Amino acid sequence: MRDIIHVTVWNEYRHEKTNKKIAKLYPDGMHGTIAKYLEAQPGMAVHTATLDEPEHGLTEEALNSTDVLIWWGHMAHGEVSDSIVDRIHARVLDGMGLIVLHSAHFSKIFKKLMGTTCNLKWREIGEKERLWVVEHGHPIVDGIGEYIEIENTEMYGERFDIPQPDTLVFISWFAGGEVFRSGCCYHRGRGKVFYFRPGHETLPIYHHEDVLRVISNAVRWAAPVNGPEPLYGNVKPLEKV
Amino acid sequence: MRDIIHVTVWNEYRHEKTNKKIAKLYPDGMHGTIAKYLEAQPGMAVHTATLDEPEHGLTEEALNSTDVLIWWGHMAHGEVSDSIVDRIHARVLDGMGLIVLHSAHFSKIFKKLMGTTCNLKWREIGEKERLWVVEHGHPIVDGIGEYIEIENTEMYGERFDIPQPDTLVFISWFAGGEVFRSGCCYHRGRGKVFYFRPGHETLPIYHHEDVLRVISNAVRWAAPVNGPEPLYGNVKPLEKV
Amino acid sequence: MRDIIHVTVWNEYRHEKTNKKIAKLYPDGMHGTIAKYLEAQPGMAVHTATLDEPEHGLTEEALNSTDVLIWWGHMAHGEVSDSIVDRIHARVLDGMGLIVLHSAHFSKIFKKLMGTTCNLKWREIGEKERLWVVEHGHPIVDGIGEYIEIENTEMYGERFDIPQPDTLVFISWFAGGEVFRSGCCYHRGRGKVFYFRPGHETLPIYHHEDVLRVISNAVRWAAPVNGPEPLYGNVKPLEKV
Amino acid sequence: MRDIIHVTVWNEYRHEKTNKKIAKLYPDGMHGTIAKYLEAQPGMAVHTATLDEPEHGLTEEALNSTDVLIWWGHMAHGEVSDSIVDRIHARVLDGMGLIVLHSAHFSKIFKKLMGTTCNLKWREIGEKERLWVVEHGHPIVDGIGEYIEIENTEMYGERFDIPQPDTLVFISWFAGGEVFRSGCCYHRGRGKVFYFRPGHETLPIYHHEDVLRVISNAVRWAAPVNGPEPLYGNVKPLEKV
Repeated sequence: MRDIIHVTVWNEYRHEKTNKKIAKLYPDGMHGTIAKYLEAQPGMAVHTATLDEPEHGLTEEALNSTDVLIWWGHMAHGEVSDSIVDRIHARVLDGMGLIVLHSAHFSKIFKKLMGTTCNLKWREIGEKERLWVVEHGHPIVDGIGEYIEIENTEMYGERFDIPQPDTLVFISWFAGGEVFRSGCCYHRGRGKVFYFRPGHETLPIYHHEDVLRVISNAVRWAAPVNGPEPLYGNVKPLEKV
Repeated sequence: MRDIIHVTVWNEYRHEKTNKKIAKLYPDGMHGTIAKYLEAQPGMAVHTATLDEPEHGLTEEALNSTDVLIWWGHMAHGEVSDSIVDRIHARVLDGMGLIVLHSAHFSKIFKKLMGTTCNLKWREIGEKERLWVVEHGHPIVDGIGEYIEIENTEMYGERFDIPQPDTLVFISWFAGGEVFRSGCCYHRGRGKVFYFRPGHETLPIYHHEDVLRVISNAVRWAAPVNGPEPLYGNVKPLEKV
Repeated sequence: MRDIIHVTVWNEYRHEKTNKKIAKLYPDGMHGTIAKYLEAQPGMAVHTATLDEPEHGLTEEALNSTDVLIWWGHMAHGEVSDSIVDRIHARVLDGMGLIVLHSAHFSKIFKKLMGTTCNLKWREIGEKERLWVVEHGHPIVDGIGEYIEIENTEMYGERFDIPQPDTLVFISWFAGGEVFRSGCCYHRGRGKVFYFRPGHETLPIYHHEDVLRVISNAVRWAAPVNGPEPLYGNVKPLEKV
Repeated sequence: MRDIIHVTVWNEYRHEKTNKKIAKLYPDGMHGTIAKYLEAQPGMAVHTATLDEPEHGLTEEALNSTDVLIWWGHMAHGEVSDSIVDRIHARVLDGMGLIVLHSAHFSKIFKKLMGTTCNLKWREIGEKERLWVVEHGHPIVDGIGEYIEIENTEMYGERFDIPQPDTLVFISWFAGGEVFRSGCCYHRGRGKVFYFRPGHETLPIYHHEDVLRVISNAVRWAAPVNGPEPLYGNVKPLEKV
């Protein structure tokens, strides 16, 4: 366990700069809103990074000092450099936690880690969502009730083309008739990955107390552990053969 | 693989004998309706058994010649003898498949195999259910579309107090706002267990083509395999120590 | 997260009282040795309980104030009262962590939670064991190397008749030619269960630094979370139907 | 279920052409030996393909008519064209089974599907391996005993950098002191993937009856199922919102 968890909140930060309604909801960007909440939690040091910074704000140095990376992207997944994606991928496998939010299901880094298309159904009519907790002893639902209700949201529906999660924590119900695996935990390499569905640029979802609480819990769950660094390659026998 | 799969459809068979509406829906009992469908499938030999038969119709001989047991119970779980439950339990761990339907979530055998309360939420107002397929390459969904729709059903809602399934195949959406893990696969011992939610005594759900198709697929999936019979207990070393 | 984790180390405490060699290894019982280590860890309040105390030391009050229960048993599994087992079972499903050590694979509480026989192969010739970490980002292996080596131990071999773990953390290698799933994590109800193989009454295994470290990590992992307490039973719809 | 399963056995087929010892063991290539065994099984139509054929023998047409692809590669992973890998990847996600043998853990297609490095330890001194069955009711171990023994083999050791398998079927013991997850089942998209460790170019492992039996069982397990073809993208609500 770390005394201080270093969190980097990454956002492509485009919608907020081009759409006034979105800018009003998130004057400092969605990353700013999330970062502000996390900064108020004990034991977290919070940084932000965005697409248009040099190296997307994710230099070797920045990533090496990040314990947990939070990722929001949507309209500009294709602009994220493959070499930076490889860098993030290597860091996750080496232990950095990764929290993938909402439309980042289609981010290069999530698809690369999952090995599948990560495709899904979607609809944008502002319907109701209810995220039901199905693993109520999991640290990610600390302080959460039986469900989280979001009055107006974009719908994501199954089939969600992901590997079966190591642990499935939330399942969403949508007014329009669909369901969705909304909170999915994975071990990948020495790192931990959490996909969390809520969040949409045109809606105040990152001001929702429960959504922020889950993100904060997920940061603690995904924080690196001082587990073994495996040796790979040719090895000598440990026993006489 | 067996040439012929011997299926026993077990039903407590009480509702059908005491309620005219139910008797009309299932004149030969729910077990009779399910058995009739399965008999029409290639490679299945189908038997039935009910609570009020001697040993509930589940003698040592009957169980030993059963490859897959289908279980429906509701109002009389408590009347199932513990010693028969132990016998079924031993047979499952030795390889017999078990398909647990609807209200049998509270059967003694399912609770014993799961190790949890198997409790859930329920409501009986005849609302709509839609079972979404979330693992679309699984043999249990052969021939099934993206979802199964049941116009009027009893609702079962999360938290469903079961161990996380080895494979989760269906998630239900309910009009009243809940979700449910409706198709759950487990390995237990050398046996396979499938919990499948649909089915209610007062509704014609076991006349639904897709529901019957899933049960039939599940029989094939759960059929015993000629895997190793493990040795347990004190053993000699396989290598010089 | 709790400020203080209340741990109860339970031991049947019979071998130590009847065998001088064992008594010399564990003058305060195996529970005493484990408790002493845990007491030295930050944030843990440690209690002990043993079979021959009234209610096995596990009164309602004692269990209700226990966050994580550690269980060691071997020769007297059958003497543990079924009603106390039911009480522990209910507490685990309500959130209490449970750490099951070594020969407690055959304890009533573990078998009840697993739903299987929990049978295995065994051999007592003091051979070498090497526990390999296979999930190196898991909190239970914090501070542990690629493997834990135990020079002389009793062997446990597959087939271990348990449900597939939610997360498999350790796999053991034995000199005599067997392997074993030695570190197994489960969610059951709102509680978490960890089975950990090492430990034998005639060997100083609970003086092994790495073994103690894993137990201590497991206590933190298994500590209760303030997740939702589910409502079960008949519920009204959340939506207009 | 298909009446006939169309299997394509793919091999990079280089070692056999350049090394006389290997050529003697596998005069028709390792693919030839495996294909010959499978051809003798009921209900299989077997094809082969190799690296040096046009499009590596894996044209759109060839892949579209393949139900299960078996993959062996080692020294020439890098020569497999990325566009062919993408084609295979798409076919697996659409339902084609994939069986990945031995050194193909480092093939492009396996790494792409897993999302991890798939790295491991290895040693080539011809030591003994014993593959223990840990899920003895799985169809892949039909007809297999408690373990498969291979007298002389290359060692692969943990940490094997893969996602936790959906189902772990085999764990290997090695004389030199390591263990390995040797039989790993995954659902990916609508396809099924099985990694199976045995097999080495300089050893007669693909003449081992049990190894061949497992491959044959895996073909049946991985064969496509007529499950739903999901709709992705923007959808209309199924309910009035």
